[in-house]
Amino acid sequence: MNDRSASIEMMDRYWRAANYLSVGQIYLMDNPLLREPLRAEHVKPRLLGHWGTTPGLNFIYVHLNRLIRDRDLDVLYVCGPGHGGPAMVANTWLEGSYSEIYPEIGRDADGMKKLFKQFSFPGGVPSHVAPETPGSIHEGGELGYALVHAFGAAFDNPGLVVACVVGDGEAETGPLAAAWHSNKFLNPRVDGAVLPILHLNGYKIANPTLLARMDDKELEHLFRGYGYDPFFVEGSDPISMHGLMAATLDEVMDRIRDIQADARSDGSIVARPRWPMVVLRSPKGWTGPKEVDGKKVEDFWRSHQVPVSNARGDAAHRKILEDWLRSYRPEELFDSKGGLLPEIAALAPEGEKRMGALPHANGGVLRKDLVLPDWKTFALDLPHPGGKTAEATRLMGVYLRDVISLNADARNFRLMGPDETASNRLDAVFEVTDRVWMEGIEPYDMHLAREGRVMEVLSEHLCQGWLEGYLLTGRHGLFSCYEAFIHIVDSMVNQHAKWLKTSAELPWRRPIASLNYLLTSHVWRQDHNGFSHQDPGFADFVANKKADTVRLYFPPDANTLLWVTDHCLRTWNRINVITAGKQPAPQWLTAEAAEAHCRAGAGIWEWASTCPADEEPDIVMACAGDVPTMEALAAVDLLKTALPDLRIRVVNVVDLMTLQSNSEHPHGFTDEIFDRLFTKDKPVIFAYHGYPYLIHRLTYRRTNHDNLHVHGFREEGTTTTPFDMAVMNQLDRFHLALATLRRLPRLAERSAQFAATLERRLEEHKAFVREHGEDMPEIRNWSWPYGTATDAGD
Amino acid sequence: MNDRSASIEMMDRYWRAANYLSVGQIYLMDNPLLREPLRAEHVKPRLLGHWGTTPGLNFIYVHLNRLIRDRDLDVLYVCGPGHGGPAMVANTWLEGSYSEIYPEIGRDADGMKKLFKQFSFPGGVPSHVAPETPGSIHEGGELGYALVHAFGAAFDNPGLVVACVVGDGEAETGPLAAAWHSNKFLNPRVDGAVLPILHLNGYKIANPTLLARMDDKELEHLFRGYGYDPFFVEGSDPISMHGLMAATLDEVMDRIRDIQADARSDGSIVARPRWPMVVLRSPKGWTGPKEVDGKKVEDFWRSHQVPVSNARGDAAHRKILEDWLRSYRPEELFDSKGGLLPEIAALAPEGEKRMGALPHANGGVLRKDLVLPDWKTFALDLPHPGGKTAEATRLMGVYLRDVISLNADARNFRLMGPDETASNRLDAVFEVTDRVWMEGIEPYDMHLAREGRVMEVLSEHLCQGWLEGYLLTGRHGLFSCYEAFIHIVDSMVNQHAKWLKTSAELPWRRPIASLNYLLTSHVWRQDHNGFSHQDPGFADFVANKKADTVRLYFPPDANTLLWVTDHCLRTWNRINVITAGKQPAPQWLTAEAAEAHCRAGAGIWEWASTCPADEEPDIVMACAGDVPTMEALAAVDLLKTALPDLRIRVVNVVDLMTLQSNSEHPHGFTDEIFDRLFTKDKPVIFAYHGYPYLIHRLTYRRTNHDNLHVHGFREEGTTTTPFDMAVMNQLDRFHLALATLRRLPRLAERSAQFAATLERRLEEHKAFVREHGEDMPEIRNWSWPYGTATDAGD
Repeated sequence: MNDRSASIEMMDRYWRAANYLSVGQIYLMDNPLLREPLRAEHVKPRLLGHWGTTPGLNFIYVHLNRLIRDRDLDVLYVCGPGHGGPAMVANTWLEGSYSEIYPEIGRDADGMKKLFKQFSFPGGVPSHVAPETPGSIHEGGELGYALVHAFGAAFDNPGLVVACVVGDGEAETGPLAAAWHSNKFLNPRVDGAVLPILHLNGYKIANPTLLARMDDKELEHLFRGYGYDPFFVEGSDPISMHGLMAATLDEVMDRIRDIQADARSDGSIVARPRWPMVVLRSPKGWTGPKEVDGKKVEDFWRSHQVPVSNARGDAAHRKILEDWLRSYRPEELFDSKGGLLPEIAALAPEGEKRMGALPHANGGVLRKDLVLPDWKTFALDLPHPGGKTAEATRLMGVYLRDVISLNADARNFRLMGPDETASNRLDAVFEVTDRVWMEGIEPYDMHLAREGRVMEVLSEHLCQGWLEGYLLTGRHGLFSCYEAFIHIVDSMVNQHAKWLKTSAELPWRRPIASLNYLLTSHVWRQDHNGFSHQDPGFADFVANKKADTVRLYFPPDANTLLWVTDHCLRTWNRINVITAGKQPAPQWLTAEAAEAHCRAGAGIWEWASTCPADEEPDIVMACAGDVPTMEALAAVDLLKTALPDLRIRVVNVVDLMTLQSNSEHPHGFTDEIFDRLFTKDKPVIFAYHGYPYLIHRLTYRRTNHDNLHVHGFREEGTTTTPFDMAVMNQLDRFHLALATLRRLPRLAERSAQFAATLERRLEEHKAFVREHGEDMPEIRNWSWPYGTATDAGD
Repeated sequence: MNDRSASIEMMDRYWRAANYLSVGQIYLMDNPLLREPLRAEHVKPRLLGHWGTTPGLNFIYVHLNRLIRDRDLDVLYVCGPGHGGPAMVANTWLEGSYSEIYPEIGRDADGMKKLFKQFSFPGGVPSHVAPETPGSIHEGGELGYALVHAFGAAFDNPGLVVACVVGDGEAETGPLAAAWHSNKFLNPRVDGAVLPILHLNGYKIANPTLLARMDDKELEHLFRGYGYDPFFVEGSDPISMHGLMAATLDEVMDRIRDIQADARSDGSIVARPRWPMVVLRSPKGWTGPKEVDGKKVEDFWRSHQVPVSNARGDAAHRKILEDWLRSYRPEELFDSKGGLLPEIAALAPEGEKRMGALPHANGGVLRKDLVLPDWKTFALDLPHPGGKTAEATRLMGVYLRDVISLNADARNFRLMGPDETASNRLDAVFEVTDRVWMEGIEPYDMHLAREGRVMEVLSEHLCQGWLEGYLLTGRHGLFSCYEAFIHIVDSMVNQHAKWLKTSAELPWRRPIASLNYLLTSHVWRQDHNGFSHQDPGFADFVANKKADTVRLYFPPDANTLLWVTDHCLRTWNRINVITAGKQPAPQWLTAEAAEAHCRAGAGIWEWASTCPADEEPDIVMACAGDVPTMEALAAVDLLKTALPDLRIRVVNVVDLMTLQSNSEHPHGFTDEIFDRLFTKDKPVIFAYHGYPYLIHRLTYRRTNHDNLHVHGFREEGTTTTPFDMAVMNQLDRFHLALATLRRLPRLAERSAQFAATLERRLEEHKAFVREHGEDMPEIRNWSWPYGTATDAGD
């Protein structure tokens, strides 16, 4: 036997061991080494797991092991068909990384028995690749994100090879179909390599897959069109497939090495290379039973989950299972104590080279805090509340510019957005960086370059997925997005929140940087784009996730936005949603006032109130969000002119989670504090940025909840003026003032004329905008009365 | 001038007219025909609109007009770059369909002035293609869905050609990238044709587009890989581009005609054809200003929105605008009264051949009610509540089978799902139909065929988009999906809800069939797939939409599911979300009882209560959802054994919107009815399928809200047993019984021992599942006590 065939023989034995352990996990709770004939009680009563994809995943794992050893590589295995959990668990157990993290699952017969039993078992481990699985940054339950995670992991990791298995089921999804284009954003000089391995496993749950039924010629066209050079590995005979796969991976890795060497040589001009990829066409349920009960199983969708369904209750089924397990010849694989034979084990890499022990797959261990500038340096100098107008996100852009500068050498921060960085007023970042772009660059293009901290593509899925992959491997970032369209990634956020929740329960998983959103171009200033662009519901969606994970911030002006941004970039394991406008708007708080206010999360704005903070008001005017705050203050302004003795308290909320009880959310106010702000029995008019229900939902247990009257988005909108958007949803100053009057029946007589005035001004507004197409000058240039205040923002 | 060049000259004039009207809409509020020099007051004060894509859209429109006339086609124009609203408005005005729908916008100078002013103007029309736009089924605000809508429209419309303009920005999105594969589901014999026109406009808001910077060779690979035959039309000289486009469209339409003729000839074997597509590469902002303020505008992203920003305030800018408008030579296009010159107007088709008057674009006018079977035929015969076990969705499948049979000739019903029709137990439909599949079919494949009412692809985006396109063109359907993964299409549902809301306000838009969901494989029975598959939050998302639009149904068993399905298929302009399990579960109501209960939406289950319905209970046990209902009834069962004199009322809720006030939702109960069910002051333990907050949000204004204690999904889950899922979230019978005891402090002394028993049984459960991996037999085979009831379900 020559070296090559010896190596192939050894890989086959390693593969058989992984397959054996995979079948064992799905079926067995005892007799793990088959030292005795298989009996009913050795088989689990409920069989839960997915066999179909697993042998292919094992095949890839063993071949990557060989490659890592031969070339001393750092390889991250992103397992798209994550329901093939048994494969990743089996392989990390074989290489030893599993038992290092979970010492109770030892590398012997007893450990193997526990390994088998715990799988898909109450109190054990999930059936899918999950945070519990060593070596993984990717769940794979909801399909579509493997490739985009892989690219996110590779950015700024020049030494890393991310091997990404894309299932042919997953390949039908939209996010995956778009993710192939990520190669237009990966720079071979400064980023790592992504090696996509499209696994044409043939079938989904009950159907063939689209890509598996395409012929190789069409597939070749498709992937060449995506910019790749596809290498086909096809067949079902294990030994010849081992040979083919090994040779292909060698060729592919040579190609990657050459691409990187070229790009990294001095003076080279970096162009987008044609990266290699592998198309692996192998039978679903490979090496499993060919037929069960006379029906085709191997190489068909019937092998998707549990091919032999009644192995506990039916002796014939049990015989199939036993034959199947014994077909891997466990006696040739494991020693008498259940350990993998040393000559087989030697195929696996060692230490952190093992894919189950790769630090990048537990990004928290690599995470370094960002170096952050002093946000107050960029704060707006404000003579008094309302004394200036500014675009809040423009100041944030200046802050982010310095974040990028200060961390330029660390290369651990990226800003993602769907073509909106400049439109969202964050363009100061382009003073120090560019948009990364590996396609052609024309002389008149602006801020496009081969390297850059900004990533723009018209796909929220790609922005989200890249950022997730980047964070999960220990880096930092922020995603700026139109508020309405962040719903596109609801489900991705959902899965990330679940990952964070579970990871936080695993001591060995170190915290990763938070997933930070800036939602701007928000509902109240999408007057120009119309109804399709008007949706503030992401906050509601996020609020359903675990309290430990989510934060919702509504900074009312630029300085509060700066504080919130700075704060979010310092946190970990959170999903921080910052909603803030980009349009010129009045500014309220000095840096000092902003800091105090944001630290508290919510508070009384005495300077805007008509009675001292420590005195009981007649009514509370609460607000959260920049436009609602402006409208609420204007409403107070109207009210205090007409009814000078009315005692109005203004409460502004930055951190929405303060509204929840402290028993429900770590940021929640105690009832005592809540009652102090919102009173126990006075009417509260609450001007809120989003759907009113969220405020009710957060506060329904509070003492004064029955007096809470929330104005927010009522799903009314079109192309109109900014103020008309507020009017359509009754969030404007006139409606807020009228709502206040309605809650104070004792004033009815005195305020009747004032109410009529307010109604008339609403009519005047409507007539004016329909005539002139813009808001009345008196609305646009509202004169804020705080100029005389001696001390702003106290 | 020969015929061909005369035709091209005429098309160019038509195009200039459309471009002129487009610029006019963006800029002017007076002087529409430029009969006098342009003055500041003729220009709108706020300039809102998108020029960049518009000339390309106009170019396509005029060429399609020519094609329709020449070949007597029915063409639906799906406008992916929907922000180019001015184009579609201009063209429908030119062809006359606009003024037929909006007679106040006449086809003369006065009408033109109104047309201009109303655009992006308060009280006018949106800046994007929207429901207000004649001829459209597609908003195009949120990008990604043009092509999938186009295919949805083409299915079962053999006479229709759907010309779908795909913007190169949109082409970067995931849903669009996947949608190209829709050709694997379109049968040239029985479906219409989709002609994708990829518009390589070059730029997005502030960046080049990925596809525009790919060379033609790579593009050709990509689209051949997707299965198309791309035809390139590239250039910027209008006259040569007209010639090229006309010749290309002729060739392309010949190809489509040949494909259809082949497929439709007797005895032919239908294979997937290589459909043609057009790649149109033209300058962004084509024919607009080349430069403004010394900066490149035409053929660059600066032309995206309003290329001349200060035409009202700045005379130099106004001069650019005036020159630009005059460059179209309006005097050669419009007569003295402002009408389009007859020789130009003659290019447009007539009557319903005009794309703005195509009935398919106002699908409600074509909608025919489904022929529905009597659902009671399939109802489960039930001796008494709990007397049988059944898989609810399996019965639904039998019902749907007959829906498909009864409407087979009408060809107006489709069932969509991501590879889950069989897994979701709807496989009875395969007795009468198949899955449509245009790829290779192997002898051992099951229920794959060239024709079929079932569409399966592993992309929720495609399922949703196809169904939307199908419904919007007047047909019917249902989308069955795993509950957790329906979040993937949150944003699409959002946009569809907005479309429905706006359409309902337009009398000329006729109602379309409802968008119906079956969410199964739900959170409580995803014990096998684990945490990633456990999310009931779609209901919360949908509940934010307009009350007129949304319905949430939680049928507790098979017969109620049948009633609800039948009901939903009879409704229009709704989004109906049905959540129901597919696993064997106890059955509660006879067909008659189910009908009465579902008609009411919620009601007292006297047979499950421990006191008469008309007597005041000590406590209310409420439930919504199949698993919560089972657990609630089991809790009552436990309680009544231990505390026989405790008066428990069981209330079951099928239609969640009954909980809202009738002032908020058309299905909402009056306070009187609500109070009658839930009492005014007794504790209510509410076992709910989803996140508890939703119940609070719906009921916060109800009299007895403070006594409502909701158990639901607390975002706890993993791979475990079904009952353990309930236990982890405190929704199980033991926790519900314990919660009941906690709310009845007067019983504390008597119930202490019982509470201890419940706690012990919880501990026994935990120990048992961790040992055996399945639920205790006594849980799995709970003995329901209703056998002695003389009359079930009264």
